[in-house]
Amino acid sequence: MRDFSKDHRWLSLNTATVRRQGDLSVIIEACARAGIRAIDPWRDQVAAIGLDRAVRLVRDANLELSGYCRGGMFPADTAHRATMRDDNRRALDEAKALNAPCIVLVVGGLPQYSRPGSASSKDIAAARAQVEDGIAELYDYAKSIGMPLAIEPLHPAYAADRACVNTTEQALDICDRIDSEKSGKLGVAIDVYHTWWDPALMAQIRRAGRERLLAFHVCDWMVPTKDILNDRGMMGDGVIDIPNIRAAVEAEGFSGYSEIEIFSNDWWERPIDEVVSTCISRHKSVV
Amino acid sequence: MRDFSKDHRWLSLNTATVRRQGDLSVIIEACARAGIRAIDPWRDQVAAIGLDRAVRLVRDANLELSGYCRGGMFPADTAHRATMRDDNRRALDEAKALNAPCIVLVVGGLPQYSRPGSASSKDIAAARAQVEDGIAELYDYAKSIGMPLAIEPLHPAYAADRACVNTTEQALDICDRIDSEKSGKLGVAIDVYHTWWDPALMAQIRRAGRERLLAFHVCDWMVPTKDILNDRGMMGDGVIDIPNIRAAVEAEGFSGYSEIEIFSNDWWERPIDEVVSTCISRHKSVV
Repeated sequence: MRDFSKDHRWLSLNTATVRRQGDLSVIIEACARAGIRAIDPWRDQVAAIGLDRAVRLVRDANLELSGYCRGGMFPADTAHRATMRDDNRRALDEAKALNAPCIVLVVGGLPQYSRPGSASSKDIAAARAQVEDGIAELYDYAKSIGMPLAIEPLHPAYAADRACVNTTEQALDICDRIDSEKSGKLGVAIDVYHTWWDPALMAQIRRAGRERLLAFHVCDWMVPTKDILNDRGMMGDGVIDIPNIRAAVEAEGFSGYSEIEIFSNDWWERPIDEVVSTCISRHKSVV
Repeated sequence: MRDFSKDHRWLSLNTATVRRQGDLSVIIEACARAGIRAIDPWRDQVAAIGLDRAVRLVRDANLELSGYCRGGMFPADTAHRATMRDDNRRALDEAKALNAPCIVLVVGGLPQYSRPGSASSKDIAAARAQVEDGIAELYDYAKSIGMPLAIEPLHPAYAADRACVNTTEQALDICDRIDSEKSGKLGVAIDVYHTWWDPALMAQIRRAGRERLLAFHVCDWMVPTKDILNDRGMMGDGVIDIPNIRAAVEAEGFSGYSEIEIFSNDWWERPIDEVVSTCISRHKSVV
């Protein structure tokens, strides 16, 4: 397991962590001031300043990406399927332009939430089948442009509205069916927030192995959790044994960034440099 | 699958559903007015009016129980272990006095939340081991007094503070290790709220079979969920395909009550007879 206590070489900042403090240019400047070497930007933040400018700012700041957020939201009724497909291909093109190592897939839940306007359904098994079909189709495009897909299993609390892939086992089952040769182009993003509770997590990380482990995200689970979406914790403030999970991921050969992704009404209220410096100190002490 | 559309013979009311509207005597009167034939009372509600009086009121109202809530909260540090053990035995004695068919076990999460005052831990694997040890020990007492134990897997959102048994598979694994002969004295309580998201649910219900299916609870999952504990939905108001899950449980031979358990700040604000009559109509139309 790598020693993170001395520097923050392997810290990446998911830009949603400070999304209310400023636009992507402000965030990139804050990263430069703090010596942060990688980010994972969100599509809406890129769109707000323009893709070309985002590409330039990332390059000029010598930043790497640890991923690009996000593709997915596959379940859709017939009327919304073409839009879903086009939207996902554009996301991959953007990831490519930004030189991302992978695109994170948040796969979507029931169609009415995944692609608003779609006819309502309570059939989560059908949504899951649509997700797998959607990934299989997008995977062909991903291979053609050389952009790996990282399926992010989300916490079961988001099964209805954000992602009906809720365990690492489920994500890896999809990977194995679509990419049986373990090409390295289809895998998972392990976020400790979404997976820490899973009794099968350690076994599934071993099953994933290096070829399937494309990204690693950290934050913490607060008790109580005041808001089901936007009360994620700064590492060390909650109950997750983060080093234990990082050790398992690194034991498989993962050697990429530990990406900090915190959706938090509390942390969004604080000055950007305070958030960034806290991320760095916690990365050294508790990740 | 039984036809629930004609009457509410198989409706049981978990008394937490109307816990802010009155004490257990008020709730029992409301059930009598509505022709409800079974309840699942909570320990604190029984304690508030006294066990002897609760036993009398239940008997005089010709009520059955569908379960008794609850035993569990097994993880504890050394200083709190004896209290935990005694507390659970008393819970079983109360269940026996009330003639409950089983006691529901909410197994507890990390020790500092399960038994407050216990030393803090982030080791969820250790908590799970304590849970299994605690159930194994309590099971001996349960057999001696003839009180079946129903392990309730809780939604992963409660893994830290309420229950670190979070899937039906995990609960059944424990059952199989402790009671390999499937005696009917150790099984699971399936609550659609806690389990609907689980991709393995249908397979695990089949695995459980009749001997392990001791209780069936219904409510609904709201989108958005405004409060992680107390925003459960009235059946039909959320996204869960309840009949699909009930059909699976009944296909295994489950023929007990559909117990309505709704923790909801919204429904706790309404008059008790309105809540009860809504439960009855939804039981007929969407359960």
